[in-house]
Amino acid sequence: MKMHGIFACMSCVFCRIINRELPAKIFYETDEVIVIADHRPKDAVHLLIFPKKEYRNFQNTPPDVLVMLSETAKLVAIKLGVTEHYRIHIHNGYGQEVDHIHFHFLSDRGADRLTYLPR
Amino acid sequence: MKMHGIFACMSCVFCRIINRELPAKIFYETDEVIVIADHRPKDAVHLLIFPKKEYRNFQNTPPDVLVMLSETAKLVAIKLGVTEHYRIHIHNGYGQEVDHIHFHFLSDRGADRLTYLPR
Repeated sequence: MKMHGIFACMSCVFCRIINRELPAKIFYETDEVIVIADHRPKDAVHLLIFPKKEYRNFQNTPPDVLVMLSETAKLVAIKLGVTEHYRIHIHNGYGQEVDHIHFHFLSDRGADRLTYLPR
Repeated sequence: MKMHGIFACMSCVFCRIINRELPAKIFYETDEVIVIADHRPKDAVHLLIFPKKEYRNFQNTPPDVLVMLSETAKLVAIKLGVTEHYRIHIHNGYGQEVDHIHFHFLSDRGADRLTYLPR
């Protein structure tokens, strides 16, 4: 059982993706953060940005982690060539499907630059 | 003409609200930030959180300002009693109606606690 963030996560989908226990299309990854394709995309580009250290939702995620997620979103926008055209949605409990803080990154442009890391 | 943020703003709607040149329902205000009711609400609670120092969009807003906006969102959630049930939407160019960075704060709960500062 991993102990990270503010509680123990045994089986959240995102932690299992981080641990390579579940497959995902990974767009970008560092030691701190991972960016994957949403498996039910709502737009031409629909990525999920989440920290490897788990926090349940936006409300209990500390400022330094929110900065890291925000700066990752900006980097994703640069990589996709959409710095002037994207949205970020954060669902705190309200429509949140996985209790592991994540930013939705959405755009109707940039899909041609979507490439994923080799499995 | 005011010079603030990274460019000069002469007449943006949000700056005019900050300067009391346009009316708005103000939920919360400090020297750095203001929270107003969206005039075309998409949910029972629909507030706009924006810094008094203007930046055009999310992409060019510095981390310390994004932290301040995020922490303000958390405080709004506490004030409305919806810490477990809200969404934040940020439109960076894509659907952005005012070129002054703002967070949309949305919830279908908490409307009973919406009160506004006296004009």
